[in-house]
Amino acid sequence: MPADARGVLDPAGRCVAHRGRTARRVLASAATLNTPTAPSAAVDEWIRERQSRGRLHVEPIPFSDLQGWDMDPTTGVMRHRSGRFFTVEGVHVTGPRVPNGAWAQPIIVQPEVGVLGLLAQELDGVLHVLIQAKMEPGNADGLQLSPTVQATRSNSTGAHHGRPVRYFERFVNPAGGEVLLDVLQSEQAEWFLAKQNRNMLVEVPSHETIEVADDFCWVTVGQLARLLSRDDDLVNMDTRSILACLPSGVDDADLPADLAGDSALRRSVLDPTAPTVHETEALVCWVNAVRSSESLIQRLVPLTDAVEHGWTIGDRAVSHRDAGHFRVVATAVNASSREVGSWDQPLIEPTEPTTFYLVVTAFRGVLHALVQARVDVGQRDLAELAPTVQARPSQVDGARAIPYLDAVLAVPASQRLFDSTLSEEGGRFLNARNRYVVVDLPLDVMATDPEGPEAGHAWMSLLQLNEILRQSNVVNVELRTLVSCVRSLLTPGR
Amino acid sequence: MPADARGVLDPAGRCVAHRGRTARRVLASAATLNTPTAPSAAVDEWIRERQSRGRLHVEPIPFSDLQGWDMDPTTGVMRHRSGRFFTVEGVHVTGPRVPNGAWAQPIIVQPEVGVLGLLAQELDGVLHVLIQAKMEPGNADGLQLSPTVQATRSNSTGAHHGRPVRYFERFVNPAGGEVLLDVLQSEQAEWFLAKQNRNMLVEVPSHETIEVADDFCWVTVGQLARLLSRDDDLVNMDTRSILACLPSGVDDADLPADLAGDSALRRSVLDPTAPTVHETEALVCWVNAVRSSESLIQRLVPLTDAVEHGWTIGDRAVSHRDAGHFRVVATAVNASSREVGSWDQPLIEPTEPTTFYLVVTAFRGVLHALVQARVDVGQRDLAELAPTVQARPSQVDGARAIPYLDAVLAVPASQRLFDSTLSEEGGRFLNARNRYVVVDLPLDVMATDPEGPEAGHAWMSLLQLNEILRQSNVVNVELRTLVSCVRSLLTPGR
Repeated sequence: MPADARGVLDPAGRCVAHRGRTARRVLASAATLNTPTAPSAAVDEWIRERQSRGRLHVEPIPFSDLQGWDMDPTTGVMRHRSGRFFTVEGVHVTGPRVPNGAWAQPIIVQPEVGVLGLLAQELDGVLHVLIQAKMEPGNADGLQLSPTVQATRSNSTGAHHGRPVRYFERFVNPAGGEVLLDVLQSEQAEWFLAKQNRNMLVEVPSHETIEVADDFCWVTVGQLARLLSRDDDLVNMDTRSILACLPSGVDDADLPADLAGDSALRRSVLDPTAPTVHETEALVCWVNAVRSSESLIQRLVPLTDAVEHGWTIGDRAVSHRDAGHFRVVATAVNASSREVGSWDQPLIEPTEPTTFYLVVTAFRGVLHALVQARVDVGQRDLAELAPTVQARPSQVDGARAIPYLDAVLAVPASQRLFDSTLSEEGGRFLNARNRYVVVDLPLDVMATDPEGPEAGHAWMSLLQLNEILRQSNVVNVELRTLVSCVRSLLTPGR
Repeated sequence: MPADARGVLDPAGRCVAHRGRTARRVLASAATLNTPTAPSAAVDEWIRERQSRGRLHVEPIPFSDLQGWDMDPTTGVMRHRSGRFFTVEGVHVTGPRVPNGAWAQPIIVQPEVGVLGLLAQELDGVLHVLIQAKMEPGNADGLQLSPTVQATRSNSTGAHHGRPVRYFERFVNPAGGEVLLDVLQSEQAEWFLAKQNRNMLVEVPSHETIEVADDFCWVTVGQLARLLSRDDDLVNMDTRSILACLPSGVDDADLPADLAGDSALRRSVLDPTAPTVHETEALVCWVNAVRSSESLIQRLVPLTDAVEHGWTIGDRAVSHRDAGHFRVVATAVNASSREVGSWDQPLIEPTEPTTFYLVVTAFRGVLHALVQARVDVGQRDLAELAPTVQARPSQVDGARAIPYLDAVLAVPASQRLFDSTLSEEGGRFLNARNRYVVVDLPLDVMATDPEGPEAGHAWMSLLQLNEILRQSNVVNVELRTLVSCVRSLLTPGR
C-alpha cells in the first residue's frame, strides 16, 4: 500500500459558516412560503411542468440481458464492466443478534462516498436552496425533488459517457462559497454494505448569479417542508437527509415569529436551554455502550452462498421464499433528461412497504422522540439510532413481538402529527415506497414499562438529535427522514 | 436479520461530566508530580517491583503447533477454535491510491469493540488514574502501563477460561460513577481491518474506596507524562490513546500556574480563543472532502490470495519478500500474572521499526501541528489524520519521495521536542517498537512549497486536534500517540 496518501484537497480557503447563524437563516427560510424569486404557485407550476415532460420507461429484463453488466455464472455477483458504479454481492453476517447465529443475503456494495449537495443563496433576503427535478428508474412517480447534486465520483467524472454533473464542482471545491453543512451520513443498512454519503449545504455569494438550468428551481426551506407533507413520493430521500442535518439550535431572541408548531415542538427543535431527559453526552455514551456490547461479522461472499438462507437466484430475480424481504431485479431504462439516454441496471425491490413510526411526547414542556438503537446487516458501525418502530405487514400479523408496535397501531388519526408515503432512493431501489408516521403518544399510554422505555430505546429532544447528527453515521437514514418530517411541522400553513 | 435490536443498556443514570471541568482537572493532574497517594518514588518502586516479578516467556512455534487455533489448510486463515478473539485472514484492496491498482496482505479481523478504560478518582484533591502493570506477549520489555481495563467482550466474559477482568463492570455500567470521556477510536489500519476501541475515563466517587490489586497503581496524569517521556516502551499504546483524547480546552483563568511549556505550546493545547490557521469546522470539512475523493474496496480473501502479491506462507511465518513489511508468526506464551497461565496465539511482527514525526511550528504565537490525511489498507473510513511523516529504514534509502522526510531528517537534536521509542499493543504485535518524534521546524525551513503545505497536509492547533478527537475514527492511533507526547511537554520537570 502507498506509504503516503497525497491528497488532492486543501482546507485553505474553505469558509465554514457559524452554526448558530446558519440555524437562524434556515429557520427564517422554513417560516417563508412565498418569495418574489419563488412564488408558491410558480414552484407548483414548475413541478407540474417537469412532470409533464414524460418519464423514464423502466422494463424488467432477464439478468442475461443486462447490457454493460456481468453476472458471474459461478458466484452470481453483478458487476458493471467498467468496474465502477456498484456491485450486487452476497453478504454473510454472524453475531449474537442474528437469528440462528448466521444469515446471508444480497447486498449493494458501493465504497465511494457520494456527494449529496444542496446549493443555497440568499435571495430576496431569505435563504433559498436549489432543488432538482430528477427522474430515477426506481421512482414510483417519475420525478422527485433531489438536492442540487447527487453524484458519486463515478458519475461526476463521466462514467456514464454522458454529460458532466452540473454544479458538482461547487461542492468539491467551494472556493468563494461558504460551507453551511458538511457531514458524512449512512444509507439503508439493510440494502447497502457500509454505505455513506456526504451531506452538504454550500452557499453561493449573493453577488453571484447562478445559471438555473431547466431541471432546477430555487425554493425556500418552508416550501420544501410544505411539499414534503403535502405530496407523497415527491421530496426524495437525499433531500430529506440534508434537511434533517441542517442546524436548528438558536437563541430565543432569534426565533422567527411566524414559525408554526406548539411550544413543546419549538423548544424541542430550537432551544438549547430546553430541559431534556438525558444529557446529549450521555446519549452519545449510550450509543458507544451499545456498539461495544455488539458484535457483527460481515463478509462479502458469493451471492450463491445466500441460497442456503432461503434465497433463490432466478433468471429475472434474486428473491427470498419468505414475505417481507426484497428482490434483486434487472431493468432496462429509457430516459430523456438524464446524463445518458438509456441504460440497464440492477435494482433492489422491496416486496412490502415498511412503516416507520416516531413516537414523540412532551417531557417538562419539551417534545422528546423515542429512538431505538438498532443493528442491521450492512451497518458500518454495529448500531445506529433508528425510528421507534419499524414494521412490515408480514411482521404485524406475525408472532414476533416488536416493542411499541401495538401502541402505535392503536393511535387514532388525530394523534398522527405526520403521515405520508415517501420513497427511498430511486437510483438503487425500485418502488421503495415507505410510510413515515410521527405519533404523539401521551406518556401514560407509553408507560407499559414502568421502568421507562424498553431496553434499547431512549428519549431525546429534536435538538439533541440535531447535535448528534453532527457526527457521522450515528443516526440512520430512516430516522433522518422522520426528523425532516417533524421539522416540517414548524412551517406555517400546512 | 432481527427486525428490532433489543439493547442491553440504557442511557438512564449515566452521568457525563462537563468537558471544561474535566479539562481543568486533567490539567491540574498533569501539573502534579507528587501526591501523598502517589509519591513519585513509590510509583517508580512499584514499577521496579512489578518488573522483578518475572515476565512472559514467548517462544516462536510452527503454525501447526498452535494450540487452540486452526489454520485452514486451503485458505491459510487462522481462527481460534472458540470462534472468539480474532482471526488472521487475507485482505484484498483496490483503489486509485493502491500501487498497481491492487494489493493483498494478511490482516487481523476483530469486529468487537474493545473497552480501553481508565478509572479516575479524586485523591488528595487531585485527579488520579488507576494504571495496570500488564504483561503482553509482544511487549519488548515485559510489562507496560496499560489502562485499568483493556478488554473485549470475549476476554471479559471468560473466553480465556480464566479470571474475569477486574473493574470491567465499572465501564460497562458506570452507575454511581461519572463518565469523563467516552469515544470510539481506530487502531493500526495497516494491521487491523476496521478495528475500533472505546476509549473511556470513568470517575469513581471520592467517598468510595476502591480495592487496588497488586498489578494496579494510582498515578497522576503528570506522572504518566513523565514516564512517557523518560522510559522507552513503558506507557502502552492504549494508555497513550486515552491521554490524547482527554479534553484540554480551558478558560484562561483556569490555567494551573505550574504547567510547563512555552506560551505557544500552552495556547495551542489549552486556549479556545487562540488564533488558528483554519477554523476547526473547515478542517472537518477537509477530512470529508478527502474521504469523498477516495475509494478503497476491501475484501476479505483467503490468505493464499496474498501469495501473488509477494507473500509466502511458511511453516513458521507468513512473510513478504520485500523489506519494510511485517510477518505473521505463531507463539507459545507462558505467563504467571495474566488471566490464564499459558496459551498460544499468532502475532504480527514488524520487520522494521517505523519513525513517526510530528512537525510543529508557531503561527501567530500558537503551536500548530502539520497533519497528513492518510489512506491505509484496513481503514474503516477511507482516510484518517496521521503524523506529518512516517518512514521505515527501507523507505528512507529508497527511491520513493516522502513529503517532508528530508526536512525532518535534517532537524538537529536540539529541535526535537520529544524523541522516544514506544511500543504498539503487545497483545497483537510482537516487538512493534516505533520511534515517535516531535520536531519544531521554523516556517522558513518548511516553506519548500511556497503555496503552503503539500497537498494532503494541513496545519492545526493541538486543541483543534483535541476537538476533532471527540469524533470517532478521524485521528489515527499513531497521531494520538504523538498528541500524548506533545501534551506531556506541559508537565513540569521533564
